[in-house]
Amino acid sequence: MPKITLLSESDLRGLVALDTEAVNVVEDAFRTLATGEVVMPPILSMEIAPANGEVDVKTAYVPGLPSFAIKVSPGFFDNPKIGLPSTSGLMMLLSARTGQVEALLLDNGYLTDIRTAAAGAVAARHLARPDAQNAAILGAGMQARLQLIALCLVRPIRRATIWARDLAKAEAAARELSEILGITVSASGSADAAVEAADVIVTTTPATTPIVMADWLRPGQHVTAMGSDQHEKCELEPACLSRADLYVPDRLSQTRDLGELRAAIVAGAMSVDQEYPELGQVVAGNSPGRDTDGQITIADLTGTGVQDTAIANHAFRRARDAGIGTLYES
Amino acid sequence: MPKITLLSESDLRGLVALDTEAVNVVEDAFRTLATGEVVMPPILSMEIAPANGEVDVKTAYVPGLPSFAIKVSPGFFDNPKIGLPSTSGLMMLLSARTGQVEALLLDNGYLTDIRTAAAGAVAARHLARPDAQNAAILGAGMQARLQLIALCLVRPIRRATIWARDLAKAEAAARELSEILGITVSASGSADAAVEAADVIVTTTPATTPIVMADWLRPGQHVTAMGSDQHEKCELEPACLSRADLYVPDRLSQTRDLGELRAAIVAGAMSVDQEYPELGQVVAGNSPGRDTDGQITIADLTGTGVQDTAIANHAFRRARDAGIGTLYES
Repeated sequence: MPKITLLSESDLRGLVALDTEAVNVVEDAFRTLATGEVVMPPILSMEIAPANGEVDVKTAYVPGLPSFAIKVSPGFFDNPKIGLPSTSGLMMLLSARTGQVEALLLDNGYLTDIRTAAAGAVAARHLARPDAQNAAILGAGMQARLQLIALCLVRPIRRATIWARDLAKAEAAARELSEILGITVSASGSADAAVEAADVIVTTTPATTPIVMADWLRPGQHVTAMGSDQHEKCELEPACLSRADLYVPDRLSQTRDLGELRAAIVAGAMSVDQEYPELGQVVAGNSPGRDTDGQITIADLTGTGVQDTAIANHAFRRARDAGIGTLYES
Repeated sequence: MPKITLLSESDLRGLVALDTEAVNVVEDAFRTLATGEVVMPPILSMEIAPANGEVDVKTAYVPGLPSFAIKVSPGFFDNPKIGLPSTSGLMMLLSARTGQVEALLLDNGYLTDIRTAAAGAVAARHLARPDAQNAAILGAGMQARLQLIALCLVRPIRRATIWARDLAKAEAAARELSEILGITVSASGSADAAVEAADVIVTTTPATTPIVMADWLRPGQHVTAMGSDQHEKCELEPACLSRADLYVPDRLSQTRDLGELRAAIVAGAMSVDQEYPELGQVVAGNSPGRDTDGQITIADLTGTGVQDTAIANHAFRRARDAGIGTLYES
């Protein structure tokens, strides 16, 4: 009978942090996506309307990594009414050689938070101006916090502004981040003022109507829209995408369906047939990233299976090195 | 932190047998598929060619059941060379109300074996003649054994013949089944003789070229083709399907793509546009099953997520009733 390693959320929080190594493993996975023989099937998605819930399953085989992850992400949006978080889930790690289950990473979504933020850092590393010092984060949830921490790993951020519909939440996030990062983080009640003052803007909300307008953007800015990865997602006014000098999806087939690109196509601002270089192609140097300081760049991140496979391999490698985890004989 | 119940393969073997209750829970799931608000997304399938492997993920939400299963089925066909089974895998059980992971059923494919055989019994219950006494099983693997046991739960089988390319394997299976079931089970080196003598025929092989010819069939017979659920699957000569009075897929969208129907469409024996009543519609009485003793009926089974959700709920219910399983805090 095979032995499976069980890793709890607290094991994983102890093993994996949002650090440069996490950014690098996610960057490597994007590079392989562009250059290697990655297999990444479409997301399996199931809606459970009676419970206002849904579940997504993502996976990807990444050549060079010993295992592949299968990630299960439920989102049940009435859970807060009964005191439970909306999202939960786990990752399984299977041997890429034998298919045997090697580890169950019972992370309740923690590794997804980390790999999502790490992708933001990868986008900023290749698309934001190297001297970007001012950040604006739209949203005040967990990803708002993590995206700012991730930005600080790759760019010399000195000041950040947090905007949220609920100013009190933005203020709380600003206080927290200011303390964690040792930089000036303030809250703003005005999204346009926050955006206009920033070199890098990250949108992290579940908005279904635009929260960033095209005429707020100015030359030299980079925008990462990660927000919700649902079909109704729309954080950027469609004209932002047509105004940008460079639009970079994480996975074009996904952003056409789930990303900012979807809404921009519907609005007629972008063409459904147009090809855009994916983040992995930019990382691999197969396609140009930012060329000049004056460009406006946009990264559209919907979340990919390669990120899950990358972070799960990273976590399991660290767990083995540290002798962490519970062995279970199945 | 949520608590998750871990059930090992040996726990599950102790809890769930191929019995009438297993057949009934799978039958109920098919009925709900036809009548209820089941959500069953297309199978997520990923090939890992360098390892001669693949992995399938199936799921279904079945109204009325408290939880839904997500099943991961890897098949890595070079594994036997290194002493490992080709197939393995697990099922996860998530609350249909909150999406929280409730149980991990580390069954290494055992529950899939049971629910697959149970579907064969459901098909025979609605499509084989009530007085069917003679069975032919083509194939001599695990499913060959289970399919005959399943048949005996729903029809008064007195004699069975096992055919396999390797006669020694057919003889071993026949000896074993004869002992388990207390009926006459013999091996045959001739598939046509085995088929011609039978009231119910079950094909359980991974054949990619037909092993049952249309001119072997005679009035009154029922054939269940379950075999491999891969794209190359073909156990029945395409003319078998056009010759049958009633063709019943488990899920038409799947059999068009993976089942016997696929090969019959390619061969021009069946039309791609034709609608056929699914097994669930027959079970629910929305569509006729066998009307007369003289009909030839064919069930084409590719395996569905509703079966997984049904058997996983059944296993977890039994585990809770018996206080079996290991609690793990994630």
